[in-house]
Amino acid sequence: MRLRKVKNAKEKLNAHPEYFIVDPQARRGIWQKEFQNMNPIHIEVGCGKGQFITSLAKMNPKINYIAIEKYDSVLLRVLEKVEKEELKNLRLILLDAKDLINVFSKDEVHLIYINFSDPWPKAAHAKRRLTYKTFLESYKEILTEDGAIFQKTDNRKLFEFSLESFNEQNWRISNISLDLHQDLDIPNIMTEFEEKWSKLGPIYRLEARKRG
Amino acid sequence: MRLRKVKNAKEKLNAHPEYFIVDPQARRGIWQKEFQNMNPIHIEVGCGKGQFITSLAKMNPKINYIAIEKYDSVLLRVLEKVEKEELKNLRLILLDAKDLINVFSKDEVHLIYINFSDPWPKAAHAKRRLTYKTFLESYKEILTEDGAIFQKTDNRKLFEFSLESFNEQNWRISNISLDLHQDLDIPNIMTEFEEKWSKLGPIYRLEARKRG
Repeated sequence: MRLRKVKNAKEKLNAHPEYFIVDPQARRGIWQKEFQNMNPIHIEVGCGKGQFITSLAKMNPKINYIAIEKYDSVLLRVLEKVEKEELKNLRLILLDAKDLINVFSKDEVHLIYINFSDPWPKAAHAKRRLTYKTFLESYKEILTEDGAIFQKTDNRKLFEFSLESFNEQNWRISNISLDLHQDLDIPNIMTEFEEKWSKLGPIYRLEARKRG
Repeated sequence: MRLRKVKNAKEKLNAHPEYFIVDPQARRGIWQKEFQNMNPIHIEVGCGKGQFITSLAKMNPKINYIAIEKYDSVLLRVLEKVEKEELKNLRLILLDAKDLINVFSKDEVHLIYINFSDPWPKAAHAKRRLTYKTFLESYKEILTEDGAIFQKTDNRKLFEFSLESFNEQNWRISNISLDLHQDLDIPNIMTEFEEKWSKLGPIYRLEARKRG
């Protein structure tokens, strides 16, 4: 997600080390220490303005959340929410998704959320989609044995690609919804993007787990 | 598909042994002999009134088609089309899909079409869906090594179930479309059902192949 550039965004983030982790690589393998508990770790890759992950963090104090975003100006908007709610179980990191394995060690993450990620519609950019096989390999590495990926998107082509990619890379796919907002039995926290755009068409959703 | 019952439908079918195969079990393993050539065999499980398979048979004389239907009154409608077009590469059989392995031997079928099959929406009837695991096992048995299943449906819940079932049973899924009529790069022959109902919502489609 891109937003208007905020001046000195990085400095503003640095001013809040209780939420924003400047050197996430140094926490690799010891994230639970950062939270001072043994609760499971859930991450959102590309958290945007953070409505989704801050809502979850508020609802589930026994889960440790890490919001990951590539753009500092965007992450600053998450910081505002976290500060306001004083969420003790949420940390923010500035990171490109391709560097996940430098920040999390094997089996360190219990759940990965991928919400409305960039569809990169051109075939030449397929490698940048967050469900491209190289990304799936890094998720496989950092997820616990029974860990899962929860993906949702409004982009039909990205979802078709993702279904095929998870299947091809031998993940178990479950709880597929091809119209999430009609499936009232699946609990759903909406992202800002979802609230704004979902009236134009269906929201697609899946869960993927490593095969035993 | 159900239609008004036609009187003496079975007798009317029996009167055309050049198209309607009375004892398909006797052809098991020797279907190419029936067609007197070595062309690949494509079948449609639940052919309904036959617009789809008769169109294909007309377009592709080098492929042998077998239209399979459970109801004789429905199959009679297919016979009318086949007779009119004098299609030499199409045969009709009256069969319940659960008996496929009694009619085709291992590796005898190159392609299986499943179009708009009954969604059996109740969980208690899941076993009757044509993509339930027991059906997938029989398809796996009769398909050649590089054989494929082409499925389409307008039923969202059936398609979600089918994606999960193919994935769970270790099939390779490809060329997924979650809105077939928008994807003009995928060739499509419409069924009667599809022409009538597709304006109400998207048509879903996938291809599934055995994993090597």
